[in-house]
Amino acid sequence: MKQIIIASTSTVHGSGYLEYILKELETFFKDTEQILFIPYARPGGISHDNYTANTQKAFEKIGKKVVGIHSFDDPKKAVREAKGIFTGGGNTFVLLNQLYKNDLIDTLKATINSGIPYLGTSAGSNICGLTIKTTNDMPIVFPPSFNALGLVPFHINPHYLDPDSNSKHMGETRETRIREFHAYNTPPVIGLREGSWLDVRGNSIVLKGPLTARIFEYNKEPYELESGSELNHLK
Amino acid sequence: MKQIIIASTSTVHGSGYLEYILKELETFFKDTEQILFIPYARPGGISHDNYTANTQKAFEKIGKKVVGIHSFDDPKKAVREAKGIFTGGGNTFVLLNQLYKNDLIDTLKATINSGIPYLGTSAGSNICGLTIKTTNDMPIVFPPSFNALGLVPFHINPHYLDPDSNSKHMGETRETRIREFHAYNTPPVIGLREGSWLDVRGNSIVLKGPLTARIFEYNKEPYELESGSELNHLK
Repeated sequence: MKQIIIASTSTVHGSGYLEYILKELETFFKDTEQILFIPYARPGGISHDNYTANTQKAFEKIGKKVVGIHSFDDPKKAVREAKGIFTGGGNTFVLLNQLYKNDLIDTLKATINSGIPYLGTSAGSNICGLTIKTTNDMPIVFPPSFNALGLVPFHINPHYLDPDSNSKHMGETRETRIREFHAYNTPPVIGLREGSWLDVRGNSIVLKGPLTARIFEYNKEPYELESGSELNHLK
Repeated sequence: MKQIIIASTSTVHGSGYLEYILKELETFFKDTEQILFIPYARPGGISHDNYTANTQKAFEKIGKKVVGIHSFDDPKKAVREAKGIFTGGGNTFVLLNQLYKNDLIDTLKATINSGIPYLGTSAGSNICGLTIKTTNDMPIVFPPSFNALGLVPFHINPHYLDPDSNSKHMGETRETRIREFHAYNTPPVIGLREGSWLDVRGNSIVLKGPLTARIFEYNKEPYELESGSELNHLK
């Protein structure tokens, strides 16, 4: 049975890296002591080693060992043999590009679909959707495709932000951007606010965390979905 | 002699479409009564006709006629025969994709380099840089390349926004995003605040408007550039 946590962010304001979700992760990863970490998104351009070390520190608190995929000679084999996988945030284009470079898309998809628990935060969540066309990131590298893992039949917009009615900025709001997405694409978009996550178990997809999510369906007014609700009907 | 205005935005807060820069445009386009408008970026997914009609209304105030490139059977010929060109804002990926689809990149570049005055705002400014890798837009369509017109030897970040120290949002600031760009790319990035524009005349590139610009060079601390300064040294 598929087991996936698709989290908006690794960190909520005023709290440490992964702290808000650690209790959940303790249960989620209960069947493995070692987690394969995919640091490819490299936030702030830090090294894969440093990013992995930071992640190790967070997971130590629930007794897990973290191993970076970059430390394996054969990253495909590392994915196939993993008992738990976490892809951290950073830049989604950099992440997806590196997954393509290492020919990991199909292997990752097959491994997660076989039931190995997968956690994604931010960029690591974006790639769970059909494509990365609803990322907030800057396109600093050109990946061979925007197609992603397609673990859920819709698109994710992590770090979803409500329009700021006091802003004097003339750039597009997040809502405008997602509406423009629907001028060219039909799948739904889940606007996940920081602190929210989707809990996927087999065919069930449930919104978790303290907040509502904003749902954008093609040719429909956007609406709020309560935490605890199922999203299985969206596709 | 090349004549280009690369503007951060079409509209500043509290003012109408193009209003803040109309006087400048009256001089800039003094040698032509007709402007070829490229509406491909389609802000908010509006039709090319509607976008062109809005632009016509703004340019009427300085006695110009606006013709949309989409109304020509042969868009390449329309570019080659234009005496003034304006590319409006919207989504940079949509714009660049459409330019590639219509095979307009080389023709546009040659025409502008031959001295036909070109105005870009927002997405229309982004494409003046080497690539669109520093756009703020959502990648809602997949263009065949991120390579753009390369009319200036650096990258443009329009609608440049300073970090908001009161924000509780954990997504990346604009400055962080541009620093991450420099983890993978070396050309300079010009952070153009709303109300600023670059005035290109032959080999001279000058910052205009009431504000400073933020300059990001590879392996250097970002710094502010005063309005009226030359940017010719940046490449």
